[in-house]
Amino acid sequence: MMRGFDSIESMNGDELLVKRKKGSKKFVIGAAVIGVMFFLVGMLIGFFGHESEHAPSPTTTKPEVLDPTQLIIQNVDVNFLQTLLKNFSSKARIAGTESGSELANMIRDMWASSGLDNVHLSTYKVLLSFPNQSDPNKVELVNKTTGKIVFTSNSFEPGLTTEDQNKSFISYNAFSPARTVLGSIVYVNYGTVEDFQYLTQNLSIDLSKKIVIARYGIISASKKVYNAEQYNASAVVLYSDPADVNRDSERQSSGSAYPNSWWLPKGGIQRDTVNYDYGDPDTPGYPSTNYNLPIDPSKRALTKIPCQPVSYIDALILLSNLSGSVSPEHWHGALPIEYRIGPGYENNSEIEVKVTVNNYLDKRVIKNVIGMIKGSEEPDRYIILGSHHDAWVYGTVDPQSGNAALSQAVEIFGHLLAKGFRPRRTVMFCSWDASELGFIGSTEWVEENLQLISERSVAYLNVHSLVEGNFSLKAVSSPLLQDAMYTVAHQVPSPTKNFSTLYDLWLAQSKLYSSNEKEPSVSYSLWSGSDHEVFYQRAGVSCADLSFNFDFRKYPITTYPLHHSAYDNYFSYEHFNDPGLNYLANAPLLPFKVTRFSAALENFITDLVHNYKEIWGQNNVQYDQLISAAKNFTEATICFEKTLLSEKELNKKPLKLRMYNDQIMQAERAFLIQQGLPSKPFSKNIVFTQSNSEPSNEKSFFPGISTTMYNIKNGKSQWDQLKHQIYLATLCLQSATTQLSLPGTCN
Amino acid sequence: MMRGFDSIESMNGDELLVKRKKGSKKFVIGAAVIGVMFFLVGMLIGFFGHESEHAPSPTTTKPEVLDPTQLIIQNVDVNFLQTLLKNFSSKARIAGTESGSELANMIRDMWASSGLDNVHLSTYKVLLSFPNQSDPNKVELVNKTTGKIVFTSNSFEPGLTTEDQNKSFISYNAFSPARTVLGSIVYVNYGTVEDFQYLTQNLSIDLSKKIVIARYGIISASKKVYNAEQYNASAVVLYSDPADVNRDSERQSSGSAYPNSWWLPKGGIQRDTVNYDYGDPDTPGYPSTNYNLPIDPSKRALTKIPCQPVSYIDALILLSNLSGSVSPEHWHGALPIEYRIGPGYENNSEIEVKVTVNNYLDKRVIKNVIGMIKGSEEPDRYIILGSHHDAWVYGTVDPQSGNAALSQAVEIFGHLLAKGFRPRRTVMFCSWDASELGFIGSTEWVEENLQLISERSVAYLNVHSLVEGNFSLKAVSSPLLQDAMYTVAHQVPSPTKNFSTLYDLWLAQSKLYSSNEKEPSVSYSLWSGSDHEVFYQRAGVSCADLSFNFDFRKYPITTYPLHHSAYDNYFSYEHFNDPGLNYLANAPLLPFKVTRFSAALENFITDLVHNYKEIWGQNNVQYDQLISAAKNFTEATICFEKTLLSEKELNKKPLKLRMYNDQIMQAERAFLIQQGLPSKPFSKNIVFTQSNSEPSNEKSFFPGISTTMYNIKNGKSQWDQLKHQIYLATLCLQSATTQLSLPGTCN
Repeated sequence: MMRGFDSIESMNGDELLVKRKKGSKKFVIGAAVIGVMFFLVGMLIGFFGHESEHAPSPTTTKPEVLDPTQLIIQNVDVNFLQTLLKNFSSKARIAGTESGSELANMIRDMWASSGLDNVHLSTYKVLLSFPNQSDPNKVELVNKTTGKIVFTSNSFEPGLTTEDQNKSFISYNAFSPARTVLGSIVYVNYGTVEDFQYLTQNLSIDLSKKIVIARYGIISASKKVYNAEQYNASAVVLYSDPADVNRDSERQSSGSAYPNSWWLPKGGIQRDTVNYDYGDPDTPGYPSTNYNLPIDPSKRALTKIPCQPVSYIDALILLSNLSGSVSPEHWHGALPIEYRIGPGYENNSEIEVKVTVNNYLDKRVIKNVIGMIKGSEEPDRYIILGSHHDAWVYGTVDPQSGNAALSQAVEIFGHLLAKGFRPRRTVMFCSWDASELGFIGSTEWVEENLQLISERSVAYLNVHSLVEGNFSLKAVSSPLLQDAMYTVAHQVPSPTKNFSTLYDLWLAQSKLYSSNEKEPSVSYSLWSGSDHEVFYQRAGVSCADLSFNFDFRKYPITTYPLHHSAYDNYFSYEHFNDPGLNYLANAPLLPFKVTRFSAALENFITDLVHNYKEIWGQNNVQYDQLISAAKNFTEATICFEKTLLSEKELNKKPLKLRMYNDQIMQAERAFLIQQGLPSKPFSKNIVFTQSNSEPSNEKSFFPGISTTMYNIKNGKSQWDQLKHQIYLATLCLQSATTQLSLPGTCN
Repeated sequence: MMRGFDSIESMNGDELLVKRKKGSKKFVIGAAVIGVMFFLVGMLIGFFGHESEHAPSPTTTKPEVLDPTQLIIQNVDVNFLQTLLKNFSSKARIAGTESGSELANMIRDMWASSGLDNVHLSTYKVLLSFPNQSDPNKVELVNKTTGKIVFTSNSFEPGLTTEDQNKSFISYNAFSPARTVLGSIVYVNYGTVEDFQYLTQNLSIDLSKKIVIARYGIISASKKVYNAEQYNASAVVLYSDPADVNRDSERQSSGSAYPNSWWLPKGGIQRDTVNYDYGDPDTPGYPSTNYNLPIDPSKRALTKIPCQPVSYIDALILLSNLSGSVSPEHWHGALPIEYRIGPGYENNSEIEVKVTVNNYLDKRVIKNVIGMIKGSEEPDRYIILGSHHDAWVYGTVDPQSGNAALSQAVEIFGHLLAKGFRPRRTVMFCSWDASELGFIGSTEWVEENLQLISERSVAYLNVHSLVEGNFSLKAVSSPLLQDAMYTVAHQVPSPTKNFSTLYDLWLAQSKLYSSNEKEPSVSYSLWSGSDHEVFYQRAGVSCADLSFNFDFRKYPITTYPLHHSAYDNYFSYEHFNDPGLNYLANAPLLPFKVTRFSAALENFITDLVHNYKEIWGQNNVQYDQLISAAKNFTEATICFEKTLLSEKELNKKPLKLRMYNDQIMQAERAFLIQQGLPSKPFSKNIVFTQSNSEPSNEKSFFPGISTTMYNIKNGKSQWDQLKHQIYLATLCLQSATTQLSLPGTCN
C-alpha cells in the first residue's frame, strides 16, 4: 500500500538524495513547518551515531562526512507526502469505525515495513459517542399550541463536489446526552463567562430552562456548554457564524464559499466534542485496559444538557426575529439580522425551539500506532513525536496533514537506521486514535505508561492541523523549548520568496501584529488543542505543537473555516492549502533555555500585579513570598546557565551532561500540582492550564490565582482560595529553583 | 559543648586510628548495628574519592592505601557516643518545648563545627498537642447517684532514681481532644479489629457511648482509638499490661521492675500520639511554611473521642470486678484479676468511669537539623541518614541512642572530609523534630522538598531506638535493600563471642524462630514506626530502619518495657542496654537486588491466593492479570540483573551506570499510587502500607487487596473495590516491569 520502500532500498545514499531533491516543490509551506519540527527533533535526539556493525559498503559515501541535518531534510519526498495525504483522507476516519480502524492498520503496516526497531498497536476499549444514523438529531421550531413543526434543521452537509458527494455524515456534538428539550431561545454570543455575566447581571435575564444558541469560536464548545449548564440552561445550539467562517458574507448565498474558496458554505456544519475533561470518560486517571472497572456513569465528566450544531443557514432562521433587546455591537455576527437576544420570538410567542439529540454511547476499540527507535547512548531518554489519525470526517487538514508528515518522518528515520545511523536518544512515533473525542488515545496511553513517560521523556512534539493556512509559523510551546525553535527556524529556508529563512518570515509576520516584537511570537497555551495536553498536564513533559497558520489580521477568525466539517477534505486541501517539506540533527545537551522560562513566569506575575492592583496587598495574602520565589527562580536559572559547561567539554563527561539534562527536565515537572485545578483534576500544570470557567478575556497563566482574583474583583469573597493558590504557586517555584541548584552550587 | 574536635584535628590518620581502637569496648551491641548502617551507607554513597586540592601532607599515610571501610569503622569513638547520649537525654526533649529546641541548636552547632559542607535548621510552625500542667488529665471512678469520686488515676510517674526524681511529666495521649466523658467501661483487649469484631458480633455488645479500656501492644495507639471510634465508643483508656511490660508479674508489687530491671514499674505510664495520619494535622499534603493556610479544624485527621493512658496499678482498679462474661484466654493479661469484659461493675451498677482530658493544641516552631556533604561525582543523588531528637521524656533509647549514633557519623564524615575524602554521592544527615507526635518534622521537610527527594534520593536509612535490647539485629527494610544488608552483615564482627560475624549471629537468632530460615529475617513493614514512613510512602525512596532487639521468645512483648515512659533514661540505658560501634565503604552501582523485590511480591500474591482460596476466582475479578503481571515483573528483574555489566566495566561507563541506577530507583517508585489507601491518602505504597482498620492478624502486604478480601470473607460485598485494587496492583507491577526493561532489551 502506498508507495513501496523497494525503490529506495535499491538506491545508494547519493542517488536517493538526488532523486528526492528533484521532488515537486509545490507544497513549500508544509516543508517549512516540517523543517522546524525535524530540526528540533534532531537537536533533541542528538546526532545520529553510526553503528559499525551496520557499516555501509565501501562504495557509498563515508557516513562521517554526511551532515545528518541535510540527510534528513533532503530525504523528504513531496510526492510521497501527497500520496499519503490522499490515501489517509480518502474516507471518513471517525474513531471507533471500520474505516478509522483500517487507517490505523494501514499506518502500522507501513511503519513496520520502514524498519523501525518496534511498531505495535496500542489498543483500548473506551467510551465513544455516536449520532443515531436512522434518527438524526435536529433543531426545530414548533408552535406550542398546535404542535405543528414549522422548521427542521438539516443534520447533513450537502454534497458539493465529487470528494464529498454521497458521503456526508450526520453532524453532532460528541458526548451530548440523548434528550429532547423544548423551550424559548436566547442568543449568548460566543457563550463565554463574560457573555453569560452580561446576560444575567447587566440584563437580568434568567437563563434557567432556556435553550441557548451560541456561535463557535473564542473558546471550546465544551466550555460554552459548561457555562450554559452553570446558568441552568436546558440545551445548547451551536453554529458557525459567517463572521467567523465566511467573511464574504454579503454574498453568502452565492458561490463564493467552498468549493470555490476555503470559506464554509451555508450548509456546512462544524462538529465538536463537548466532554469536560480529556481521556475516556469512564476511566478518569487510569488507562482503559480490559480489566479496568469503569466509574459510575453518573460521575462521568460529561454535560447533562443536550447540545447540537447547525449550519448558519439554519441558524439564520433560529435567530431571525428574536424578541428582547438588541445585543451589544461586538456580539453581532454577519448574518443579515439584528442579533437580538430573546428570549423567544418577537410577535410570535407561540413558537418555541425543540432540540432533539439521539446520540448513543458505545464502548469501542481504538488503536494507537506506536513506533520506536532505540537510542544508542541514552535509550532511557525519549523524544516523542505524535499526531492523530482519527478525523471528524475526512480531515485532510486536521489531522491528516500532520499525520502524513509523521509517517514521512518514520519512513526517513527507518531508512537512516537501515543505513547504520542511530540517534543518541530513543525516538517514539505515535499516531493517536480518538483524539477528536477528547484526546482519548493519547490520554489512555500516557495513563498506562505514566511513570515511564514522566521519568524518561525529554520532549513531546505534536503536529495535527499542520497546514491551516499559508501565512506564518504558529508555535504553541513550553517556554523551555522556545529558543530551540528560534535556533532551528534560522536554519530552515523561508517558504516564501521575500525572506531568506523561516525565522525572518516568522519574525516579520509577528511584527505585523505588534511592531515592538523583537522575536517571533510563540503561544504558551499548552492546556488544550491537541494530544500534547496529557503529556504536559499529567506527565510534565516539555511540549510543542507546530503548524502553519493564516493571517489573522486579514481573517480575524479563530480557526480555519472548514474546520471539523465534511468539506475539510483532499479537494479543499489541494485547492486552498499548500503542504511540502525540509529537515535536521544535533547535540546531546538539551536545547532548553531555563532563563526563558523564569522570564516568562516573572512576566505573568507582573501582569497579575498590574491587572489586579486593587486586590494586591489586601487581606494578608502572601504575595511577597510568591514574588520572591519567582526572583529566586530567575536567579537560579541565570546561575544554572552560567555554570553549564560548553558542549565540547560535556561530550567528554557523559555523566555531567546527563545530570544537567535531568535538572532541566525536572524544572519543567516542578510545576505540576497533584490535585490539579479545583474543577479539573487532570489539569495539573499550575502555570499553563485553564479551567472550564476561565474568563476568556483574561491572560490565563497561573489560572488558580488569576481566576480567583477575577472572582474577587467581581464581588466573590474567595480570599482563602487565593491564599492557597498563591501558596501552591510559591511552592512550585521553590521546587523548580531547588531542581536547578545542585547542593553547593550558586550560593 | 561536648567533646571538642581539636584533639582529633591535631592527630594524623594513624594516630587517630590507634587511639580510637583503644576506645572502650563496653557497648559492643550498638557497635554492630552502627557497623551495618555505616557499611550500608558506604555501599550507597560510593567510595570516598580523594580530592587532590585537599591532599594530606606527605607525612601522613597515603590515602589510596587506606581502606575506607576500616577508616570509618575504626573512627567510631565509644566514649564520645557515651557523652552524647548522656547529654542528649539529660533533660526531657519534648517537641515544641524549650529543652527540645535547645537540643536542636546543640546538634546544629556540633554538626557545623564538624566541617560538613552545609548545616542548617529547617523550621516549621506546626500544630502540637500538650497536657494541661495545672489541670492534669485523669480517669476516675464515680458514684453516679451521689457524685462521689471513689478513685482517681495518677497522671505522673513517681520519681524512682535521681535520674527521674522531681522531673516527672504529665502522661497523656497527644492529639486526644479535651473532653470529659462519663460512662460504663468495657475491656477490649488490644483493641484490634478482631477484638472489636468478637465483642460486637460474637457477644453482641453495643459499644456506643461506652468507655473502652485497651492494653497497649500489637497495633498502634492510634489504631485502637480509630477502631473504638468506628464502634461509637465515647472514650478510650490505655494501659500497659504487666503481661507486656513486666513479665515478673507475680511479684509486680515487689522491687523487680525499674530501677532494678528493665521492666516497667507499676506506676510507669506509656505515652503515645493518637493522630490518624502522619505530619502536621493542619497541613495534610503540604509543608507548614509560614505562608501556608491551615485546613478547617473539623477536617483534621484527628480523633473526636478523648483518650488517656494510665499505669497498670491504676488499670488494676479500673478492671477489677468488671461484670459480664470472662474474656477469652488470650485476652488475659498478668494482672491478678479475671479479665471480665463488662460493661460496668459486678454488683456495683452505681459506679461509672469518668475520663477527663484537658489537652490543648498549640502552634509551635519545630526544628529539624539538616547537614550535607556534596557528592564528588553525582551531587544530585542523595543518601539520607536520619534519626529524631525529640523524645516523649528523656528518651535515652528512643531516640537518643539512634540520634547519638547519627551525630557520631557526622563527626567522622566531617573529619574524613577535612582529610580530603569526599563521597561519590551527596550525603544528608537529618535529625528530626516532633517525630513522636506523628513524624511531623520529617513529613513537613519531605513535603517541602517532595519533587527533589523523590527524584534524587537513592535511599533513606533511619535509626531511632537503636538499642532496644541485646539479642540480634532487627532490620525493617525495602526488599531492594535486603541483600545489601546481608553483604555488610558479613563484614561486621559479631558483638557476642559465639559468632564470628554479625551475619552469623543474625542468621542463628533468626533460626531460633523458624528453623527453616535460610537467611536472617528482615521485616518489610515500612508503613509506620518512624520517620522513614514519609520517605517510603510519599516519595517512594528505598528505606531501612535498623536496631538491636531483644529475644522475643524469651520476652513475648511488642516493645521494650520502658518505651515512652519517663524511665527510658540514661540510668536504665546504662544499666540495662548496651551501645557501641563499627563501619564501611564501596562502589557506585547501587547494591539493590531487584530479583529479591519480585520474589517478595510473588510470595505475597501466593499468600493471598492461599489465604483466600474461596474468594479467588469468583465474580470476574481479573486475578490472572495480576499474577501474570507479577510473573512478567519477575522475568524483567532476572533479565535486568543478567544484563548488568560488571562493576569494573561500569566504572568505565558512568552514563550506563547512572542509567542502571535510575532504573532501580524508579522500580521502587513504581509502587506508589497517587490516591493512597481509601482512608489514608498519604499511605501511597500499594504493597507496603497499612490502613487504620487493617485486621492485625493478617499478612498485610497489598493491603488494598488483602483487607478487601478479608471483608468479603466476612460477608461484605466489596467486589468492585476488589476489582479496582487488583487493577491498581497490576498497573504498578506493569510500570515496575517497564522501568526495568529498556526498549529493545530482554524481549
